[in-house]
Amino acid sequence: MQFSVKHNNLPSSEDEILNIIGKYFSDTQPQILLGRGDDCALVQFDRPMAVSSDLFLENIHFRSSYFEPEEIGHKSLAVNLSDIAACGAKPIGFTLSLGLPTDTETSWLDKFFQGMADLANKHKVSLIGGDLSRADHILVDITIFGEIPGASCFLPRGGSMPGDALFVIGQIGLAHVGLQVLERFGREGIADWPQATRAHLLPKPHVNPGLVLSRAAFNARPPALMDISDGILSDLPRLLGMSGELGTGNNYAGMLGAKLTINSEDLHPELLRWSHSQHKNPIITALIGGEDYALLGTCAPDLLPTLQAAIPELLVIGKVTDEAKITCNDEEIGFNGFDHFARDFNIDS
Amino acid sequence: MQFSVKHNNLPSSEDEILNIIGKYFSDTQPQILLGRGDDCALVQFDRPMAVSSDLFLENIHFRSSYFEPEEIGHKSLAVNLSDIAACGAKPIGFTLSLGLPTDTETSWLDKFFQGMADLANKHKVSLIGGDLSRADHILVDITIFGEIPGASCFLPRGGSMPGDALFVIGQIGLAHVGLQVLERFGREGIADWPQATRAHLLPKPHVNPGLVLSRAAFNARPPALMDISDGILSDLPRLLGMSGELGTGNNYAGMLGAKLTINSEDLHPELLRWSHSQHKNPIITALIGGEDYALLGTCAPDLLPTLQAAIPELLVIGKVTDEAKITCNDEEIGFNGFDHFARDFNIDS
Repeated sequence: MQFSVKHNNLPSSEDEILNIIGKYFSDTQPQILLGRGDDCALVQFDRPMAVSSDLFLENIHFRSSYFEPEEIGHKSLAVNLSDIAACGAKPIGFTLSLGLPTDTETSWLDKFFQGMADLANKHKVSLIGGDLSRADHILVDITIFGEIPGASCFLPRGGSMPGDALFVIGQIGLAHVGLQVLERFGREGIADWPQATRAHLLPKPHVNPGLVLSRAAFNARPPALMDISDGILSDLPRLLGMSGELGTGNNYAGMLGAKLTINSEDLHPELLRWSHSQHKNPIITALIGGEDYALLGTCAPDLLPTLQAAIPELLVIGKVTDEAKITCNDEEIGFNGFDHFARDFNIDS
Repeated sequence: MQFSVKHNNLPSSEDEILNIIGKYFSDTQPQILLGRGDDCALVQFDRPMAVSSDLFLENIHFRSSYFEPEEIGHKSLAVNLSDIAACGAKPIGFTLSLGLPTDTETSWLDKFFQGMADLANKHKVSLIGGDLSRADHILVDITIFGEIPGASCFLPRGGSMPGDALFVIGQIGLAHVGLQVLERFGREGIADWPQATRAHLLPKPHVNPGLVLSRAAFNARPPALMDISDGILSDLPRLLGMSGELGTGNNYAGMLGAKLTINSEDLHPELLRWSHSQHKNPIITALIGGEDYALLGTCAPDLLPTLQAAIPELLVIGKVTDEAKITCNDEEIGFNGFDHFARDFNIDS
């Protein structure tokens, strides 16, 4: 069902919601042969299609107490765009399943769709359909589609080799600081921590750098790439194909590891200020912080200069090794500390 | 994110859930170039792709008190397959976003995925990715993809002409009876009302008839088609492109209407028995009953014999008229009665 008027258990007028959607999402990509309103939408992909889904649930992934509706609309789409970016695909369209409490007001919907549409229009992605329902708490589930020039341009996890450069694109740890600030001070914390709170409330998907990396894969061994949703310490082993549980000893089944070199000057001033105020090591804050949706990748050393020229914000943070462990600034990462820190990733912990 | 292990706020082991998914969903369609485990899945559609999303939420769309986990797995996928069928597409794959309470047991997951996989395997659709999260109540959101031989074979709503035959494929009203039985007696009602309760718990998507209808569209004006999720009285105006609100007078903006002819012998014996026991008109029960996921369509009269020969269960229930009203057995439908009946469609009403 693609947003046609139906009994969807929403006491507020479905027509009203559909009208708001129509107001904010009018443009469609040429690939969308038929959009909203029928049993299915119809899309023509001439090239391989990347697809991903991400839930964004009230009280699990966000709190309405400090998220404005525009920010909920933005972030629920941004986390999906980030998955598309992490494969080097060009986003085309998405479906939206939206569950709303019965007391949701039209003004809330207007702001929610405004925030979502601003980001969608920036990246030229079309809302091609979805479903509506009543729900106890706000529920957003998006499935997003992107195009890849050819299957060989898909940037997967895995495939790194010892000696590869390890890089990030985007801030690391900053959104985690924003989460801490918002949990403690609510929106009153925004004035003192504008960039950190913004990183949590309005994360930026790195779509264009993803496309640049994908193009670089045409004539070379492709970079390995993923987006950092859970923090470098959780995500890096996944990128490198390391298996085994962190915190249970370094019994990785994979053959790769990483040697990180991160300096304070690589980190955002608000992260440094927050870490110092909390008597925490800013490097650790940066390594465990999730939800920045920075891109984390590796590439052959001889590809690095090309990528650096094309993506000025690309920051080299180390290299891939053939030893199945992770060190940072020559210290092996103390995983015992990790679980403790990890617990305050989620707002419901 | 496509089901890679991550911090998804589920206290039970994500690995465990991924293992169960892997156990039940091992086969993939050739179109799936890369399945679960990376930021995105990668799919190659050489033909136009039909896409649809449907939410299936505990206490809104189903009750756990009388739905077995296998049935939740089955029905959440079935309602999506039905949307694909209603466009005449061939289902290929789907993404699954799954929210689960923290006390969900492994045995529940096993049964849920068994029910979903049985239906998926029957229709050769692959689970290509999705997302997992903790949630207060069970939350299933599926986005499904199908292929169409060509855009002209997509069977839309609209496009009917006066004189067209109006038909259904599948039972009408039976699932509504099953819902009433289950709400009143729980699973104890299954013994007395086996087919009605089955129609509600385990609806059958009519994928193959949809494909037959789509093929018929190659050399003729295509049938108009949709699936009946809210009942004929709600869905028929949508099929015919009638606008305006039912129950507010017959102020349709469209130019089409329908003349229905439905006899008791067209209806399921359990529907007749239930209606009589409730002192209700079985024809009205059949017209307002939702969630059967029967197909509702119209076609040119000269196409009808071909379709009837290919789809034995196709039942003609009337014809399209050029008068913007709906009659059944020569009586204009009393819309005042409709709203009253409609209220007990949803389990939370």
